[in-house]
Amino acid sequence: MSNAGSGYGADSVGRGICAERLLERHMEMARIGETSTGGIDRAALSDADTDAHALVMSWFRQPHYRIEVDDVGNLFIIRAGRDPNASPVMTGSHLDSPPNGGRFDGTLGVLAGAEVLASLDRHGIETRRPIELAIWMNEEGSRFSPVTMGSAVRAGRLGLEEALNSVDENGDVFGAQLQRYFGNLGLEPIPRLRLDPAFYVELHIEQGPILENRGVRIGTVSGVQGVRQYRIDVTGKAAHAGTTPMDLRRDAFVAACRISAGLSAVFADSDRRTQFTIGRMRVLPGAPNTVPERASFTIDLRHPDPKRLAEYGMKMSTVAAREASPCTVVVEPLISLEPVVFNPGICDLVERSARRRGLSVETLLSGATHDAANMATLTKTGMIFIPCRDGVSHHEDEHAEPADMIAGANVLFDVILALAEMADGHTAIAAPALI
Amino acid sequence: MSNAGSGYGADSVGRGICAERLLERHMEMARIGETSTGGIDRAALSDADTDAHALVMSWFRQPHYRIEVDDVGNLFIIRAGRDPNASPVMTGSHLDSPPNGGRFDGTLGVLAGAEVLASLDRHGIETRRPIELAIWMNEEGSRFSPVTMGSAVRAGRLGLEEALNSVDENGDVFGAQLQRYFGNLGLEPIPRLRLDPAFYVELHIEQGPILENRGVRIGTVSGVQGVRQYRIDVTGKAAHAGTTPMDLRRDAFVAACRISAGLSAVFADSDRRTQFTIGRMRVLPGAPNTVPERASFTIDLRHPDPKRLAEYGMKMSTVAAREASPCTVVVEPLISLEPVVFNPGICDLVERSARRRGLSVETLLSGATHDAANMATLTKTGMIFIPCRDGVSHHEDEHAEPADMIAGANVLFDVILALAEMADGHTAIAAPALI
Repeated sequence: MSNAGSGYGADSVGRGICAERLLERHMEMARIGETSTGGIDRAALSDADTDAHALVMSWFRQPHYRIEVDDVGNLFIIRAGRDPNASPVMTGSHLDSPPNGGRFDGTLGVLAGAEVLASLDRHGIETRRPIELAIWMNEEGSRFSPVTMGSAVRAGRLGLEEALNSVDENGDVFGAQLQRYFGNLGLEPIPRLRLDPAFYVELHIEQGPILENRGVRIGTVSGVQGVRQYRIDVTGKAAHAGTTPMDLRRDAFVAACRISAGLSAVFADSDRRTQFTIGRMRVLPGAPNTVPERASFTIDLRHPDPKRLAEYGMKMSTVAAREASPCTVVVEPLISLEPVVFNPGICDLVERSARRRGLSVETLLSGATHDAANMATLTKTGMIFIPCRDGVSHHEDEHAEPADMIAGANVLFDVILALAEMADGHTAIAAPALI
Repeated sequence: MSNAGSGYGADSVGRGICAERLLERHMEMARIGETSTGGIDRAALSDADTDAHALVMSWFRQPHYRIEVDDVGNLFIIRAGRDPNASPVMTGSHLDSPPNGGRFDGTLGVLAGAEVLASLDRHGIETRRPIELAIWMNEEGSRFSPVTMGSAVRAGRLGLEEALNSVDENGDVFGAQLQRYFGNLGLEPIPRLRLDPAFYVELHIEQGPILENRGVRIGTVSGVQGVRQYRIDVTGKAAHAGTTPMDLRRDAFVAACRISAGLSAVFADSDRRTQFTIGRMRVLPGAPNTVPERASFTIDLRHPDPKRLAEYGMKMSTVAAREASPCTVVVEPLISLEPVVFNPGICDLVERSARRRGLSVETLLSGATHDAANMATLTKTGMIFIPCRDGVSHHEDEHAEPADMIAGANVLFDVILALAEMADGHTAIAAPALI
């Protein structure tokens, strides 16, 4: 086996992952839960999801690996380190997919992590810290709520009981399905007793168009945007579209459009970092010749600065009430996730690895949430992004170039290796010599 | 029996309708197809609709009345005139209702017409022309398409076959249900062979708020607005609300809002007589965290001037295409009804009757269509409106004040009586002495 040549981020000293194996395993994994139209249907705890976990386990049946599963179904492949007292470096992602999802979201991070472990073996490298590959349970949240369930329980942000009691659309309970998964994998779950990791780093496709648009190969992820979602219900009065003069109407949809325009104006007088989406809009009664009585819509609002997000939240009701008149309006918060800032030391390691390998690199913020956002509350955390075609994700058309997959895995290799030698108490940024 | 006192439009010479009988019959009719919540459910050709027709027939079992039904189910109560060669004066409306409709829409015009006939009997008045009360079949179009079916066939605007082949949501065919109705009423249908009426006049609730807002008792209807309906389909690109920068989005809903605003601006730079409604708006895929890929909506556009309406229609596609970018847009016309202008002579008779009876009167345009709009293509036609509470119609809350019902019926009485004496070839306006 050999490293890929230049353009793939080959290491001048010959160290890195094995490109062929990464791509072969990617094709092998893409057959588990494949759809007839080129996508992946691998809902959490489905047979396909369990088979995907089993495939990764099958690659690590060696004495210096331990395989463990915790009580929410997170699977850990643990490569022993030299120092028995050192807390581990963790990497990972997830193998579950949304319905008709793609072959890269989550899967890339797991396969790249597995490839780092296998490549350390190939190079005969022993690390000071143990290295753990985490396969997080139910990241997508599309079968069982909430999203990033496994990492949220691991980080102590979600109670185990709440996870176990989650029920899918068919009435299947997460806890019962989990027992089936344990049985199929032949594993006894152990409660979370091990050391928290010293560092966590995750490779993922960007799921957005920024890197592709800028022609950049590697993204250093500085954090995850905060999200607030609201439901806004406007109530006006149904009336005949032909008999009701414009100035006597209370048109709920017209009021909804005024609210949307008013909010756009508030968000626009800033720094263009605000993202504002109306993704759902329901108009009732919905007849072409009836003035709408109700308009119910959602607002998804994102910004990296928690203060700005809080300020927007305060303005939401004021603007809605002002613009709704003569209709009435109710604003209900649905989701509020604070922004996450990743460890600057890990960001720095990612950037230096990319530059040393001749890969263009830029810092960006993640618009979507990830298991890494949970881990950031527990330990020093970072993420590496690679481009995906047209920014498409959660879709069968999801695609990343093999060259970028390989480049991203090589950067992950470098960063894990650097962190695995780092002394406790050091921030990553204090150890520039490691890459 | 006596006329109602002043405030009800009592005639100084004591002629007019019998208020008590009108209100009693209104209550009696309101029990046929009544809902538990105060409304009416009397779909065309339902048992309730047939019973309602039978009730009106039961009031006219006298030798100087003929009862006829035509081959689309329109029922005619014909009071003989003095001149065997004179073409009749026709009045009427409909007894069918939309689901959970009100007690006034259509019903008022039939009951007032019946009351005019009965009051002519009471006063011992013989008229030169016959007077016909038409109960039009399936005005609402909510069970069988299209709306104003019966009057459209009578006026030659809709083929009989098309009407007979109309199918409701349960798969019941209009023609078969119509045979059942003929059987239940004990009537043999006769094809349309009789003389076209010389005049047609119809009393109706306004179904809008204009008269109520102005505190006016009687509306002289100058015509019916033209209507154009369009469906507009905007296609953008679905994208993640968190990972897709605002300037790289193709948000179909945002484009739909721009189109709406652009059209509002075009319609607003005119005379405030344009009515513009977006009554249906569908956004796909409809997830709070997904930028909309599609927005599909309807536009209902009304104006009394056919040239203006045509001009707006021309601008529709231009404005939609301009504002849709970077999304694509398709504009599909759904409905195009030309405006109708009623006979100015009948308008004049309505106004003079109202003034003589001390009733405030104003001219207005009908926003909704009526059987009268079909009859206007066949003969000299007019309409009388009375206020309805809050402009509400097609709803169980539909309400008209008894005083206004009586006032409207008295004006109808005057106008029919004037028209019934008028010579052929005279326009109504040429005979000021008649009221």
